[in-house]
Amino acid sequence: MASATFDIARAIVGDRVQHEFLVLEREEKRLANGDPFLLLTLGNATGRLGTAPLWTAQLDWAAGAEKGRVVQVIGEVAAFHGKRQLRLTAPLRILPDALVRPEHFLPRITVATDTLWDWIDRARGELKSHALRRAVDLFFADDAFRVDFEKSPASVAGHHAAVGGLLLHVTEVATIARNAARVMKANADLVVVGALLHDIGKVQAYARSPTGFAHTTSGSLIGHVVLGTMMLHERLQDVPRSLLSDSQRLELQHMILSHHGSLEFGSPVPPMTVEADLLHWADESSAKANDMAESLAEDEHFGGGEVSDRRPWRVGRRIWRRPHAWE
Amino acid sequence: MASATFDIARAIVGDRVQHEFLVLEREEKRLANGDPFLLLTLGNATGRLGTAPLWTAQLDWAAGAEKGRVVQVIGEVAAFHGKRQLRLTAPLRILPDALVRPEHFLPRITVATDTLWDWIDRARGELKSHALRRAVDLFFADDAFRVDFEKSPASVAGHHAAVGGLLLHVTEVATIARNAARVMKANADLVVVGALLHDIGKVQAYARSPTGFAHTTSGSLIGHVVLGTMMLHERLQDVPRSLLSDSQRLELQHMILSHHGSLEFGSPVPPMTVEADLLHWADESSAKANDMAESLAEDEHFGGGEVSDRRPWRVGRRIWRRPHAWE
Amino acid sequence: MASATFDIARAIVGDRVQHEFLVLEREEKRLANGDPFLLLTLGNATGRLGTAPLWTAQLDWAAGAEKGRVVQVIGEVAAFHGKRQLRLTAPLRILPDALVRPEHFLPRITVATDTLWDWIDRARGELKSHALRRAVDLFFADDAFRVDFEKSPASVAGHHAAVGGLLLHVTEVATIARNAARVMKANADLVVVGALLHDIGKVQAYARSPTGFAHTTSGSLIGHVVLGTMMLHERLQDVPRSLLSDSQRLELQHMILSHHGSLEFGSPVPPMTVEADLLHWADESSAKANDMAESLAEDEHFGGGEVSDRRPWRVGRRIWRRPHAWE
Amino acid sequence: MASATFDIARAIVGDRVQHEFLVLEREEKRLANGDPFLLLTLGNATGRLGTAPLWTAQLDWAAGAEKGRVVQVIGEVAAFHGKRQLRLTAPLRILPDALVRPEHFLPRITVATDTLWDWIDRARGELKSHALRRAVDLFFADDAFRVDFEKSPASVAGHHAAVGGLLLHVTEVATIARNAARVMKANADLVVVGALLHDIGKVQAYARSPTGFAHTTSGSLIGHVVLGTMMLHERLQDVPRSLLSDSQRLELQHMILSHHGSLEFGSPVPPMTVEADLLHWADESSAKANDMAESLAEDEHFGGGEVSDRRPWRVGRRIWRRPHAWE
Amino acid sequence: MASATFDIARAIVGDRVQHEFLVLEREEKRLANGDPFLLLTLGNATGRLGTAPLWTAQLDWAAGAEKGRVVQVIGEVAAFHGKRQLRLTAPLRILPDALVRPEHFLPRITVATDTLWDWIDRARGELKSHALRRAVDLFFADDAFRVDFEKSPASVAGHHAAVGGLLLHVTEVATIARNAARVMKANADLVVVGALLHDIGKVQAYARSPTGFAHTTSGSLIGHVVLGTMMLHERLQDVPRSLLSDSQRLELQHMILSHHGSLEFGSPVPPMTVEADLLHWADESSAKANDMAESLAEDEHFGGGEVSDRRPWRVGRRIWRRPHAWE
Amino acid sequence: MASATFDIARAIVGDRVQHEFLVLEREEKRLANGDPFLLLTLGNATGRLGTAPLWTAQLDWAAGAEKGRVVQVIGEVAAFHGKRQLRLTAPLRILPDALVRPEHFLPRITVATDTLWDWIDRARGELKSHALRRAVDLFFADDAFRVDFEKSPASVAGHHAAVGGLLLHVTEVATIARNAARVMKANADLVVVGALLHDIGKVQAYARSPTGFAHTTSGSLIGHVVLGTMMLHERLQDVPRSLLSDSQRLELQHMILSHHGSLEFGSPVPPMTVEADLLHWADESSAKANDMAESLAEDEHFGGGEVSDRRPWRVGRRIWRRPHAWE
Repeated sequence: MASATFDIARAIVGDRVQHEFLVLEREEKRLANGDPFLLLTLGNATGRLGTAPLWTAQLDWAAGAEKGRVVQVIGEVAAFHGKRQLRLTAPLRILPDALVRPEHFLPRITVATDTLWDWIDRARGELKSHALRRAVDLFFADDAFRVDFEKSPASVAGHHAAVGGLLLHVTEVATIARNAARVMKANADLVVVGALLHDIGKVQAYARSPTGFAHTTSGSLIGHVVLGTMMLHERLQDVPRSLLSDSQRLELQHMILSHHGSLEFGSPVPPMTVEADLLHWADESSAKANDMAESLAEDEHFGGGEVSDRRPWRVGRRIWRRPHAWE
Repeated sequence: MASATFDIARAIVGDRVQHEFLVLEREEKRLANGDPFLLLTLGNATGRLGTAPLWTAQLDWAAGAEKGRVVQVIGEVAAFHGKRQLRLTAPLRILPDALVRPEHFLPRITVATDTLWDWIDRARGELKSHALRRAVDLFFADDAFRVDFEKSPASVAGHHAAVGGLLLHVTEVATIARNAARVMKANADLVVVGALLHDIGKVQAYARSPTGFAHTTSGSLIGHVVLGTMMLHERLQDVPRSLLSDSQRLELQHMILSHHGSLEFGSPVPPMTVEADLLHWADESSAKANDMAESLAEDEHFGGGEVSDRRPWRVGRRIWRRPHAWE
Repeated sequence: MASATFDIARAIVGDRVQHEFLVLEREEKRLANGDPFLLLTLGNATGRLGTAPLWTAQLDWAAGAEKGRVVQVIGEVAAFHGKRQLRLTAPLRILPDALVRPEHFLPRITVATDTLWDWIDRARGELKSHALRRAVDLFFADDAFRVDFEKSPASVAGHHAAVGGLLLHVTEVATIARNAARVMKANADLVVVGALLHDIGKVQAYARSPTGFAHTTSGSLIGHVVLGTMMLHERLQDVPRSLLSDSQRLELQHMILSHHGSLEFGSPVPPMTVEADLLHWADESSAKANDMAESLAEDEHFGGGEVSDRRPWRVGRRIWRRPHAWE
Repeated sequence: MASATFDIARAIVGDRVQHEFLVLEREEKRLANGDPFLLLTLGNATGRLGTAPLWTAQLDWAAGAEKGRVVQVIGEVAAFHGKRQLRLTAPLRILPDALVRPEHFLPRITVATDTLWDWIDRARGELKSHALRRAVDLFFADDAFRVDFEKSPASVAGHHAAVGGLLLHVTEVATIARNAARVMKANADLVVVGALLHDIGKVQAYARSPTGFAHTTSGSLIGHVVLGTMMLHERLQDVPRSLLSDSQRLELQHMILSHHGSLEFGSPVPPMTVEADLLHWADESSAKANDMAESLAEDEHFGGGEVSDRRPWRVGRRIWRRPHAWE
Repeated sequence: MASATFDIARAIVGDRVQHEFLVLEREEKRLANGDPFLLLTLGNATGRLGTAPLWTAQLDWAAGAEKGRVVQVIGEVAAFHGKRQLRLTAPLRILPDALVRPEHFLPRITVATDTLWDWIDRARGELKSHALRRAVDLFFADDAFRVDFEKSPASVAGHHAAVGGLLLHVTEVATIARNAARVMKANADLVVVGALLHDIGKVQAYARSPTGFAHTTSGSLIGHVVLGTMMLHERLQDVPRSLLSDSQRLELQHMILSHHGSLEFGSPVPPMTVEADLLHWADESSAKANDMAESLAEDEHFGGGEVSDRRPWRVGRRIWRRPHAWE
Repeated sequence: MASATFDIARAIVGDRVQHEFLVLEREEKRLANGDPFLLLTLGNATGRLGTAPLWTAQLDWAAGAEKGRVVQVIGEVAAFHGKRQLRLTAPLRILPDALVRPEHFLPRITVATDTLWDWIDRARGELKSHALRRAVDLFFADDAFRVDFEKSPASVAGHHAAVGGLLLHVTEVATIARNAARVMKANADLVVVGALLHDIGKVQAYARSPTGFAHTTSGSLIGHVVLGTMMLHERLQDVPRSLLSDSQRLELQHMILSHHGSLEFGSPVPPMTVEADLLHWADESSAKANDMAESLAEDEHFGGGEVSDRRPWRVGRRIWRRPHAWE
């Protein structure tokens, strides 16, 4: 589907347009003679572009094209005073909500999702424990789940807040945790499975719309930590005790539940095993490194100096852009 | 069954004994001539009593009667130097674990459980909302659940730590919360249902044995807050959406999940409605007043003075026994 | 006196006006020909209304009518472009500060104060302890105190921030605490008296002016908790020890002093009795439920969704407007 | 009175004894023939000394001489196996509680109280403000208050926990605060008065008995911070407003109330003026330096090393005895 | 050099100007006929002054005079509509960065630095310990260090944020700490040396530019506490162990390192001696009294009332301007 | 040297002994006839063993062999009542402190140090940056440093508290951090160097004696975090700026200084770069996983159950021993 998105960043004058756009701005103005005209700003995940004015006769072409709606546009890229603008050649069509694919209008990770799925599927394949394999396959061998999972961000506006962000974050956590478990002589298979499952609740906790990510009601009232625990509990109903004992189930639920590390950060129980603890630190490593790296990349925090003027909210402290290279 | 317990506190010399007791102490001693003899201390929820010595010939009557085991005793109450002791007239029988009823050996609330059930059932009957009634009946109209619920304490060693303690605590919370909701113009039916459901997870989180209460593994790894949420989730599977909507389900789960009031006290989400908030304060009122009242009743904290010497652990601060009456 | 307030909300064109108003806005403008004119916006507790312009000849009618002053207005309600405005027919009279009754211009609780006083007086009448009765009557049988108490808010801008708010809050706290004390087998008379007295310091801690509530200097430098303790201490001077012992006095002072529950919330000592503790939780129930309910009623926190966009300052967390009814 | 105390530390064999002692230990023993005898250990602020045995015939000489009682002793210092002991020559007389002067049996500061009073009285004499002088004289020109104040410790078991400790601490605080105020261009007279008044509540908050210091009930239920504020409030009743305005009274009460610096340390309001803030830091300097110095002097924390093994409770962190001198 | 600064506050019409100024504002405007003109606002530590317009022909006089640059100005003070303005009589000269002396454009303490140096040098002269004298002289007998130290502020925007502020603050701390040490019978020489050295790291941690103070990169990445410790460590290399032992060195480093009092305020170790503790409290006294006094002097916090409307950031709580004098 | 240690665990009767031992216990006893005899308990890192009695004639063989001293023993392993004991055949020789090698008597990691050095040296060899290589070689190419480093524990009584513990911990941290940096696209070389350097201060902060590990005075007064920063600062003096710029030096010092992650855990500055942050999380992973694993291995926390009875001090929470295997 993504290929159907019009690439605003690379568009040149003369390009034909027959795509969906999000209405970012709608300005109703008047000429000196009092005649009304309309300017729209349209956008998608690749950028934003203004329209040529819609004059009196065309005003009804944009009926219903309110800010936040998705519209189907027919037209072409034109030039105006050296800048590109979108010249409409037909009335806009308002897309019904049911047909809108929010992914087209949201930021997206730059890594190919196939690469990430390959890593996950190879990791699943290497699990020696049948019980762990069965547990992880309850979700990761389910195509419907994979479709949802792949679209989900890892947070609403913080770390990995992009389509595919959850997939990327989980792969990072699993990689880091597996390595740490090997170094610390802990059960590496168990932490991989814990890492893959730890954030499954985000599939239910976050919603996507063309204008951005948001918490669902259950995401606010229950939280992704407990949602994930309940999702696992539900799917485990169909697995026989002979394959996965009560105690083993508890351990997996505990890993999801404790992954925030302590009560004040939203885990109702703290990690009680080596593997749950390592999962927590790996989660911190992925989330906080992403927060730090993206905050460092945002020029707005730096007024020309090396050290940020204030404390970017995602890291909560002043940060430093080193002026030197290391070779 | 409780009637089958031998009432140690009121027993008099000559009473026949044919009951179960917990072995509290087992002392193996020797006479001056080297002959061995044995003294046992036996007990149940009503008190403790020593046995007459078991001489050499009777030693095997007590084979296997180790500390912590439950035994069936046949004998009678005798006098020895003005004190009562238990004279055995037949070998002890070690009760298999499966037959032990821990309730016989544990502290028990002094209020009649019937009175409390009556209150709860009347409160259920007064609910105007069919949806709320259906939700609460998933548990409180289920006899198996009622049996478990009635035996459970409200904590392992803190407030209402007695058989029946959970039933008493929940009734107190529901009474206080209902009144507060009426005063504050909130939905009184909803807080009653929230109060009845808020601690259902304790049925799975706490275990009973003749020697005391303890956390189960799931009580430690998941915690009663999330266990209760999951139990409700499970039983709601069979209720049609037409009777209880997704949003209504969420609200009930949220009330269980948020009843500790804030993250650092183990609720992964804080209360987000008036009713969830009032439930939390009612829970505090019942739990903390019980902690305070029982700590005030313990002489060990008071070395003769009005103010406690130290901070009793259940309240965490110094407490005061007023020396005056208020008429 | 309240009946003398002109009811702006219900006023219709033609109504005669001869009332006091607060000057909310004062705009000095000029016509195209440079002639000056004046527009005032006037208000009271029932709403706000603009005046018809005061032209050059009438400018001195409004001399001294600065923003924040109270003025006596003679005029009538007129219509202008379909909206109501106030047409003055005589010069404004600036009311001396000493004559201003701030209550006319401040928000007011919607419950009748008589109902609340009835509850309080009945509760006083039901006290069995002469000593407690005497203590509470030091304030609640004193008409001068009652007048002040009835006008006071329970906070400057938070819970129950309205004329009559303190009376309402205290009645709520007393009702909730009395019920909780009965449930928990504590001294219900004592908590009622504690509840009635706990916030008396607010009579000295808060000031009223037509433009709003504020902290007095003693409210800032001493705080209502200690002010209340000192007020009680002062009035107790005249009560004989035979009626109220030193120890009983201490207990009442302790209940006022400890009602915030812990040091970090401004109580220099935490509650050391069951009754002081229950009073604290009842205070939380009334204050926090009011904060939550009023925050839920404010549309500004909800951008169309069920969950608030941010954390309203009075509750400090995101809150939820349930989309369903419970029958 | 202190001169009447028998100086145990310096007593030599043959000294006559006709003094009061505290019974520290009472041991009832038996000879091989079964005859009972009695050993007492007696003490006062200067040390402890054992008695010669009281044989059968003398047993009733010690009737009522229980541990913790004060007794009048007639006898002499004798030698036994090279050690001193107290040989009684007459029956002990149990001193009625009303006649006991606890100061004789409690630790006492080593500085002469006269020196401290001189400092205070000179400081009072140097005050330029009549209003401040009047306020401080309400207490420090009152002989009855001075007697109580001079006997009071500054804490029960922490800093300056000795008879005279409060006097010493307050003099230290006043000296430090006055200097700091001069350096920081603040009102030095005001901080001196604040320093002298800041701990007056301890006169009511702490009790003395021969066995040690303790909190009074009001010290526990109200705390010395608020007690001091109330004491000042009471004595100010008789001072005319013309000499000390409402606002000036408030400032002095605020200085007492805020001297712990923040809510979590028991001040219901934090310091709101430069002078109240400087008083707080001076109080910290005196209290914490005394805690640190006395903890450093206690060998029990140091197992031979320079750094304490654990964290002495009065300072809450590891401390260091420097091994070097500075010259 | 300071004498070379043009005194804007006292300048009168006709004064000749031949001085350096900081360009505070640069406004490029146009006349009705479209001709461009330029207005500059220039300033230094004594105030700010606007220029007369630079018309078309003079525009290149101000080439390169961007906001934030320092320029050499030749001209005179003229009058325009009753206000003073600066009339240029020659082109501006842009001062190369290397020649700019930021001190000319920054706030400066009002106490003469000579007075402060005299105090410090006298205090050094009075030290009885050769070892301590040697340690302090490593910095305070070094003219290059004194020049830097004298220019440094004690914070970027908080307490003593002025040229000379560090010198003033350190003198205050040393005075207060020396007095407190004498009162508390601690080593006064040691606290004086600790006070003089405690903030030496600020010389490296803060930078000055004409537009204000800022943190250097090492000030941000290392912090002044550790920078000072390292500076002392470095200079101690050349002092023989016979004069200053390892243990004595450690003590001085510890005093610098622990002067923030606890870990959460940036001291990696808390004070472990009486002297280090007293130094900490003296530092608080100077810093916080300055914060409080300057916040009280800022009208913006007080909307006409005695108590501040909000909590000024430098003190973090509401503050009070007493309305009365104390004689 | 370690091979010279007598292997107590595996010793059999008849083994010749000519080794050093630590005196663990020294008991002086008497026979019934009053003759004195002596029993010693000797030990080293492999275990403990009692001696045969030293009778009157041999008593001076053990002169000076006090508890805590190291002695040279000549003798053999004998049998007594079925247990092994050490029979001395010559007088003990007290080893002068200077000759004692504490490593012989302290716990030691079970991994071969050669393996760890190989990893570190290979990692150094793979560094692409000459600057980073030079920085790390200042310590890790210095044989004297390597000897000290290899003997140091990573804590006194917590994680990796064994000879070689620091080497093991640092290798774990470097491995985990390097992997995490690769995953998060950060500078892997930089985190490896940061990991190798982050704890160098422990070489000065911890001391070894035969009876255990302890903090040195500088370890207590300065702390290993700042000690490490100062050690690096010192050795960097000899490196030319052309190889390692000021800014690069600062970054390495910052990584050491910030590795505890936040102020309250003893880092005076928090991590301000991605690499410093990842180093911190890797440090947590190694330290906390070791604390958790070793606490789980200690039976004393588990009274037969799966969940620990209390909270082991090294982890601060209850922990779980899973009863199941994962295949």
